[in-house]
Amino acid sequence: MSERGLLIVLSGPSGVGKGTVRKAIFDSEENDFQYSISMTTRKMREGEVEGVDYYFRTKEEFEAMIEAGEMLEYAQYVGNYYGTPLSYVNQTLDKGKDVFLEIEVQGAEQVKEQVPDGVFIFLTPPDLAELKSRIVGRGTDDHEVIEERMRVAREEIEMMALYDYAVVNDEVPLAVKRIKEIIASEHFRVDRVIGNYIKMLKEM
Amino acid sequence: MSERGLLIVLSGPSGVGKGTVRKAIFDSEENDFQYSISMTTRKMREGEVEGVDYYFRTKEEFEAMIEAGEMLEYAQYVGNYYGTPLSYVNQTLDKGKDVFLEIEVQGAEQVKEQVPDGVFIFLTPPDLAELKSRIVGRGTDDHEVIEERMRVAREEIEMMALYDYAVVNDEVPLAVKRIKEIIASEHFRVDRVIGNYIKMLKEM
Repeated sequence: MSERGLLIVLSGPSGVGKGTVRKAIFDSEENDFQYSISMTTRKMREGEVEGVDYYFRTKEEFEAMIEAGEMLEYAQYVGNYYGTPLSYVNQTLDKGKDVFLEIEVQGAEQVKEQVPDGVFIFLTPPDLAELKSRIVGRGTDDHEVIEERMRVAREEIEMMALYDYAVVNDEVPLAVKRIKEIIASEHFRVDRVIGNYIKMLKEM
Repeated sequence: MSERGLLIVLSGPSGVGKGTVRKAIFDSEENDFQYSISMTTRKMREGEVEGVDYYFRTKEEFEAMIEAGEMLEYAQYVGNYYGTPLSYVNQTLDKGKDVFLEIEVQGAEQVKEQVPDGVFIFLTPPDLAELKSRIVGRGTDDHEVIEERMRVAREEIEMMALYDYAVVNDEVPLAVKRIKEIIASEHFRVDRVIGNYIKMLKEM
C-alpha cells in the first residue's frame, strides 16, 4: 500500500548527543529512511562535498528562500544560516520514504508548526531521568547551584512538552533501538493507515 | 521512575488469530506484562484451574459484579458471561506493570470508554491489507459475492477507527514483533512520562 513517508524529528537540549545518536542510527542495519541534508551559508571546508555534507548557498540565496517560504526550518549560528529546504523533504515523503531530521530545539519548534503530524522525538539527558539525585542528592552544594540546576531541568521539561516521545540517552545503542522502535510503531498508527483503506474501498 | 502500567488491548475481527498472537507474545522472550485472567460463568472443564484459566463464578455473582461496576468489560456468549474484572487490572497497573487484554471488539469498545489512554491495537486480517485483489482481483465472482466482501471490509475498517494501531497478522512472528515494538514505544510517549518529571520537580 502506498503511504506517505514520515517526517521524523530528533532534537533535544544542546550537548545531549543528538549527532552521535543520529550517526549511530544511520550506521545501523535496517534503517530505511533518508537523512535530510541541511543548507548553509558558511564556507565549504576542505573535503566537504556540495549536496552531501551540505547544500552550500550564498547569504542572498538563503534569504531569498526564507522569503519564498522554501525553508522548513532555519536558524542563524555564528553569523551563518543553517536550515532544511522544504522541497527535498516533501519530494522524499511523497515517494513514501521517511525523512529523518536531527536539529536544534528552535528548529524543531518551527517544523512542529508546519508539519504537526511529524514524529517528534526528544532526546533526554540521563541526568534529567535522575533529576532528584542530580539536583539535591549530594547535599553539599549551595542554594544557588541547586536553583540553577532546577532552572535548567525545568527548561528541559518545558521543551519536552512539545514532543511526542522522550527517549533517554543513557547508552547510545539503547537510544538507537528505542528510536527505531518508535519509528516502526508510528507506521502502524491507525490515523496514518486508515485513509489508505478508505481510499481503496472508494476506488473499487 | 515509578510510572503507572499501560493497559494494552489487542482485538480484531473474529477469526483473525488474536488468541494465537497473544499466546506467541506471552511465550516470547522479554515480555514484561501481565495477562489479565477473564471471569466466566461457564462450567470449569477438566484440567482447568481457578484463577489460571479463568475465574469461575456463578451467574448471580457475575451479575452482581456488573451491577456494582466491577467489570471492565463483559459479554454473553452461548448463554454464559465472559469478562474482565476491574480490580485486578487496576491493582496491576498501579504496581507499574502493563496489563495485556486480548478481547473481542465489543469488549474493546467498552474498555475504550472506561480507559481512553489504553493502547488499543487492532489485528488486521491479511486479506484486508490485500483488499483490492481479494475483492475484485479474480474477476470471476458475481456481483453479490463482491458486495458481501466489500461490506465485511467496510465493517472492519469502521472497527479499526476506534484503535490506536493497526497491525497486519500476515505472519504471527512479525505481528508479535510489531506489537512488542508498539508497547515499548508507548512507554516513551511524552504525555505518559512528563507528569513524573513535573512531580519530581515539585517534590524538591
